[in-house]
Parts: sequence; structure tokens; C-alpha cells
Amino acid sequence: MTALPAPDGSVAAPAPAAPAAGKVPPGMQYLYGSGEAAALSYQAYLGVIDTIIAKSSDRAVGQAVFSVVLAPGATLDAPKFESCDKKPLAVVLDIDETALLNLGYEADDSQRGGPYDQSRWERWEKTGAGAVAATPGMIELARVSKASGVTLVFNSNRMATNAKETEAALTGAGLGPVEHLKNLWLQGDAGTGSAKDPRRAAIAAQYCVIAMAGDQLGDFSDLFNASGLDPVARRGLAQGRAVKMLWGHGWFILPNPVYGSGLKGDLDTIFPRDKRWTDPGPTPVAPVSAPAPTPTEKK
Amino acid sequence: MTALPAPDGSVAAPAPAAPAAGKVPPGMQYLYGSGEAAALSYQAYLGVIDTIIAKSSDRAVGQAVFSVVLAPGATLDAPKFESCDKKPLAVVLDIDETALLNLGYEADDSQRGGPYDQSRWERWEKTGAGAVAATPGMIELARVSKASGVTLVFNSNRMATNAKETEAALTGAGLGPVEHLKNLWLQGDAGTGSAKDPRRAAIAAQYCVIAMAGDQLGDFSDLFNASGLDPVARRGLAQGRAVKMLWGHGWFILPNPVYGSGLKGDLDTIFPRDKRWTDPGPTPVAPVSAPAPTPTEKK
Repeated sequence: MTALPAPDGSVAAPAPAAPAAGKVPPGMQYLYGSGEAAALSYQAYLGVIDTIIAKSSDRAVGQAVFSVVLAPGATLDAPKFESCDKKPLAVVLDIDETALLNLGYEADDSQRGGPYDQSRWERWEKTGAGAVAATPGMIELARVSKASGVTLVFNSNRMATNAKETEAALTGAGLGPVEHLKNLWLQGDAGTGSAKDPRRAAIAAQYCVIAMAGDQLGDFSDLFNASGLDPVARRGLAQGRAVKMLWGHGWFILPNPVYGSGLKGDLDTIFPRDKRWTDPGPTPVAPVSAPAPTPTEKK
Repeated sequence: MTALPAPDGSVAAPAPAAPAAGKVPPGMQYLYGSGEAAALSYQAYLGVIDTIIAKSSDRAVGQAVFSVVLAPGATLDAPKFESCDKKPLAVVLDIDETALLNLGYEADDSQRGGPYDQSRWERWEKTGAGAVAATPGMIELARVSKASGVTLVFNSNRMATNAKETEAALTGAGLGPVEHLKNLWLQGDAGTGSAKDPRRAAIAAQYCVIAMAGDQLGDFSDLFNASGLDPVARRGLAQGRAVKMLWGHGWFILPNPVYGSGLKGDLDTIFPRDKRWTDPGPTPVAPVSAPAPTPTEKK
């Protein structure tokens, strides 16, 4: 099946061809409607808030603070990080399904089916600012970051040509002030395409980045999007000896089972062959006058 | 559509009637195959590990430690907690899609479609012990809890009649030792049906519970499963003023977009009516010799 790039440059989940009117796919029920997903969001953002409190206090007493942005040349096995020096503290966040829930777009999409349509997404960027909501926990994070003098910097694959409308979406959701190229970096601003490392480097040149938040591995490093990685290898990278310790400790991940690079793989890719099970079926009940079933019948 | 109870007594996602061979639903791709979901698991379990380190150190120096199990009579608006006194420290965990990933069952289920079948699930409990895996981060948590003298206690809606097989599943995945009614509480052990509060109370009578982990809100309190709660109200409860502060701070939630109480709701329940958007469609290009489109045509 053809996988097309999603809002963030990742791969979209193939939508059913003809959804039933009013029906919502399970992934959307979960992400936009469940208490469980709201709890996952709070869990992530309260972790970011704890980090802000700890690190701004360290900075205030002159203790060293470290960046969580990988430096050029770093690998996921041997990570090394950008320098912080005396740079002001910042938290770097993705926008879509991280800082904002794209409620209007997804409600519309849920009734369409069909593949991802980049031009429709771009019309959403231009006209959808009023139909988004801050992700659970984001308003609290915005408040604490403001009070602590820690800047929220957004790094998104929305288009730089729609910067004004994206500023309006964030500000309207209560996450402002936001200013393009000051604390808002978009596709086209540095480097090319959906790669976020060049923008992360530009941000890290100005700020000491104490935390990053995103719903896709590419919100933390483009190394997760190396070509030729199948889901098993990619999942392995996220659990690597060095990387795994960063989750919830500088790198904060938000749930998104609706679209993105994680929605790939067939049966043999997703489920290891040595962890398979076949339902043996109900134990047959022998009729009173018949012989007991033979073992082969039981299989 | 009929919602049937899932492994944990929650509501199962309706599976498609006739899945294509080898194809895996997006929720399973995400949960069992993505680096993002593995990262969410590590994020949760590293938080539990931090809690173990902090609280066992508090206990060691004689500082008071508090339980995160709601006491009888508590509400979600006005939570109060069980007492800890000098009871030994414990972490309470759900099993399915929390401590263990049910890879064999879900691989089989992905190729079936059709509604949830409780008798098939029970055959899985009896025969599937070899086809599970510890959820990412669980092995690390088991190691740290052992080294810290903090007991892992499992509270699951698997059947008490299958206790031996569930002990084997947990032990085989590296999460032992596990002994029924000592650190394994199952459906039928205390109270009736899928309610977990009576078992939580029994555990809290013996242990000071410093953290709980689960993939369903019912893994934290049965109050989230009050009858008549629609998804909006239930999501509201998870974000209530008191409850929201517990996520990642004593209550640790794991992702599960595959089944459970969160997978409910139609378009008008999941997406607020004041956050809707309709794609305006591509801007029409006026043919050279034709009049410009009227405003009504543009809508």
C-alpha cells in the first residue's frame, strides 16, 4: 500500500476507503476522546514542567545545565549533545499532535477516508487556526515556562509560507506569544524538507534546550528517519542503551496512533515469529454415546 | 455497535469483519511495532523507577512515604489515600498491555476480525504463556525494584482459576518471582467481576503502594468506570484538578490504542462541535475567457 507523507513529513496511516458516516477510527477515539490519552499527555507535560523547575533552579544557583539536542556527528549509540554555556533556557516542541490537537482537520478527515492529501493539509494550515485545541497539559506548561523565564520554541513541519496562520493557531490556543524565526521554526526555514535537525541546530545555537517534546521520533533526531530502517530496527533504536534513558528525562513523547512514521508494518514485521499463538479452539464435548475425540481432532 | 468486555473488563474495539491476510490494524502497528510506543513505555517505567529510588530513600532515612491508592470514600475531586505507616513498599501493576505485551494473542486476533470472544481470551490465558513479552522498560523496573526491596504486585482481570498459567507468563517474561495471592491478584480474588478497587484495598492493607501502572483508567480507580459516563465526561475526570497532577507522579499510564474503555464514541462525541472545519477545497482557477467565480461558487 502506498504510504504518503503526513503533516510532519512522516508516513500517514492508510485511511479506510469509505468510512461509515459519523464513525470515528479507533486511533482517533483513543487520541482525541479517551481519558487514557489525556493522561499520557499530562504525564509527558508534567515531566517537562518538573524539568523546567529543576533546571531553572540549577541555572539560578550557577550549576551547569545540559542540552538534550544531539550535536553534529553524534550517533544514537554514542550520543553527544550541543553546548549550553550561558545561553537562555528553552523547551523545543513539535506542534501537530504535540502542542496542538488538530480537532477540526481530523474530524473532517475521519469522514473522508482515502489517502493523505498534502494540499488539503495546507488548506488546513491556512484556514484552520480556530479549530485546534491545546493538548492536555500544554496550558499548564506554557504558564510554568513563562513564570520561569524558559522560552517555548516550536519546531514544526508546517510550511514557512503559512507562518502567520500557525502563529495564530498557537496564540489562539493560549500558547503565545509566538513569533516566526524567533520561537517558531517551520519547514523551509533551515535545511530542506521535513528534516528537523538543521532547525534544531539553529535553535540550539541560541538556546540551552533542556527538554524536547514530540509525537514522532523525528521530533528528537533525524537519525530515527534514516532510510532503509524497517519498524523492527526503528523500534530497536528507540530502545537503544543510551537512547532509552532519555525518555521522560529530557526527551518527552506524546501519543499519536492516528498518523506518523510508527504506523507501518505487516504481520511478520510487527509480531515476532517466536511469539505466535494459534487459538486451540474450544475443547470438544464428547457426545454421551460416541467415542472420545482423538488427539488429532483436538488440535 | 455492540461493545464487548475486553481482557481487563473494559470495552473492546470493534475489529473489522474481514481483515486482509497479513495486514495489521494501525493501533497494533503503533503499540507493538513503533519506536514511539516503546518510548512511551520507557517514559512511564523510568518514572516508576525514579519513584522507587526517591521513596525507598525517603523510607530509609525515616521520612514519611505516602500511598497513591485512593481510600474508601475518596472521590476524584477530593482524593484521599490509604495509609502507609510502616508497611513495606510496593508498586501495583496491571498485567495485559502494561507489564506484558500479548504478542501471540494479538497476532492471532489481527488475522481474525470479528468481536471480542471471552472464551478465546481464556484459552489464551491457559496456553499463551510462551508468546508474551515484557513491555519495554519492565525488565529494568523489575531489576531496580528487586535491588531496592520494593515488591511488584500485579492486579489483573485475568481469571483466578488460571493463576498458575499467569504466574508462568510473568515469570517466563523475566518478571518473577510471582505468587498468587501474595503478589498476584486476579479476577475472583476479592470483590466480584472486573472491579479492581477491592483488590487494591487488599493490597494496600499489606503494602505502602508508592506507584501504580496501567493502560486503563480502571487500573487506578474504579471511579473512572462509573456507569453512565460518556467519553467526554470520562476524559474530563482524567483531567480533573486533583487527578491530573497524579499522572507521572504516582499514577503511571501506558499506551493502548488496541482495546479498552477508551475506544468509544462517534464523531459528535469525540470532536467538539465548536472545533470543526470543512475543507474549502482548492481555489478554483478561472479559465482565461470565463468570468471570475462568484463568492457562492467559492464556498
